[in-house]
Amino acid sequence: MCQLLAMNCNTPTDINFSFDSFRRRGGITDGHKDGFGIAFFEGKGVRTFLDSASSAGSPVAKMIDDYHIRSKNVVAHIRKATQGRTGLANTHPFMREIWGEYWIFAHNGNVKNLPEVEEDALYQPVGDTDSEKIFCMILNRLREKFKKRPDDEVLLPHIKKIADEIGEMGLFNFVLSNGSWLACRSGSLLHYIVRKAPFGIAHAIDNDRVIDFSKVTTSKDVVSVVATIPITDNEVWTQMAMGEFLVFQDGVIIHDWVPEDPVYPTIEEGLKIAEMAH
Amino acid sequence: MCQLLAMNCNTPTDINFSFDSFRRRGGITDGHKDGFGIAFFEGKGVRTFLDSASSAGSPVAKMIDDYHIRSKNVVAHIRKATQGRTGLANTHPFMREIWGEYWIFAHNGNVKNLPEVEEDALYQPVGDTDSEKIFCMILNRLREKFKKRPDDEVLLPHIKKIADEIGEMGLFNFVLSNGSWLACRSGSLLHYIVRKAPFGIAHAIDNDRVIDFSKVTTSKDVVSVVATIPITDNEVWTQMAMGEFLVFQDGVIIHDWVPEDPVYPTIEEGLKIAEMAH
Repeated sequence: MCQLLAMNCNTPTDINFSFDSFRRRGGITDGHKDGFGIAFFEGKGVRTFLDSASSAGSPVAKMIDDYHIRSKNVVAHIRKATQGRTGLANTHPFMREIWGEYWIFAHNGNVKNLPEVEEDALYQPVGDTDSEKIFCMILNRLREKFKKRPDDEVLLPHIKKIADEIGEMGLFNFVLSNGSWLACRSGSLLHYIVRKAPFGIAHAIDNDRVIDFSKVTTSKDVVSVVATIPITDNEVWTQMAMGEFLVFQDGVIIHDWVPEDPVYPTIEEGLKIAEMAH
Repeated sequence: MCQLLAMNCNTPTDINFSFDSFRRRGGITDGHKDGFGIAFFEGKGVRTFLDSASSAGSPVAKMIDDYHIRSKNVVAHIRKATQGRTGLANTHPFMREIWGEYWIFAHNGNVKNLPEVEEDALYQPVGDTDSEKIFCMILNRLREKFKKRPDDEVLLPHIKKIADEIGEMGLFNFVLSNGSWLACRSGSLLHYIVRKAPFGIAHAIDNDRVIDFSKVTTSKDVVSVVATIPITDNEVWTQMAMGEFLVFQDGVIIHDWVPEDPVYPTIEEGLKIAEMAH
């Protein structure tokens, strides 16, 4: 199983504390060694850093740690290959432009028996992962339905609907951002935390690092972080239910669709679900 | 005026020698300080490194210099903003997916009075440069003409035709790659060199560095480098005529359309043409 990390904030924020810990799961504290990627939105623009080297050892990841890029929307992924070989074309997150916006998508799971993308479809996968195929499917469905960009109030429920359908076909955790909102779906394991004033001290699990957020924030900052498995062990992370669909904007939750009779697997159970899906 | 650098080879090759020299034009040997970008194809995959910092001082550019990524197709750009503000959304090269291939485009020039891209067009610019608009225009024209991907023998002449039309509207130097071929058009200044055995010693102008290519290549390697202004001063670079359209694949020229009565401006004249286009 791969792992996801994402951030959505109301002010450009440095993800260094979380990413430096998270990236150790790619080879040191866990075995997600088949490449990594991280995308930073800056205004409408976005830059994605990809490497087929493990995130723990990659010079690209090291540079990112040192550079302290500030962004309101970040999407990161460390890969343990299931469908599709290792290599750059299969490295998340994936990017496409839709309606003049860059959209960034990262997936953790395994969806089998997906229909083939038509040869004349607008969006077509370049690599051979289920993940990129799913991303193209979502975008093709949206472009078929909406010739022009609808308002978010129409768009987001529609993305949720498509996500539910794909979720029926396999294991489907994902994070998706257009630089304004961050949409997250849990298929097995996904946790989040909304940090705001009064900010406290956090302890990162994977690198044993401590930060006092009150020293690096203002009282107006709101910063939400999403991760497959929590990054810190002295804060309360909220677990998403299987099938839950959540959207953040400016650091706060703007939509939260929770299934009836929600199921919250333990981390062990969640990892087991992922293993069995392969 | 911006500057372009590109490479097309028959074997994955390290562009370090050229890039390390080229990037000094972004703030040390020249004033192209408004960001830079470089894209490396690896198989069908591609990764683009962008920074709004100058290429001479950027930590991203430094990391690239140290990492020695090997690629058969590279496209790089250093920016001196003309149309569009500085910032990531306006930083070249631009990427889009077409027919399941990533295409990478970088432009040097200034094309005014471009028609607006329709709101329901397949490809739409995210930033506000003429360059990205042109790239979207080319892709929209291609998708309108060809529902499915035609062979290169049909596709490349068609790209040339569109490029000629855009070239009528302003100053239009560009490089475009799909990871297999590298297409280049000169509107004012563009030079290239095809390096193959027997390899010799090269001296880079901007960082006074010397390399003995025979020590880092095999006798089978063919490496073509394209640049607005030659990178080295002890080798013979070939200048493209204004309006010439050239395509490289596996390091060699596979198409070369030279206008009747070709015009070859000196570097000074070429820079003057660019200045007057603004």
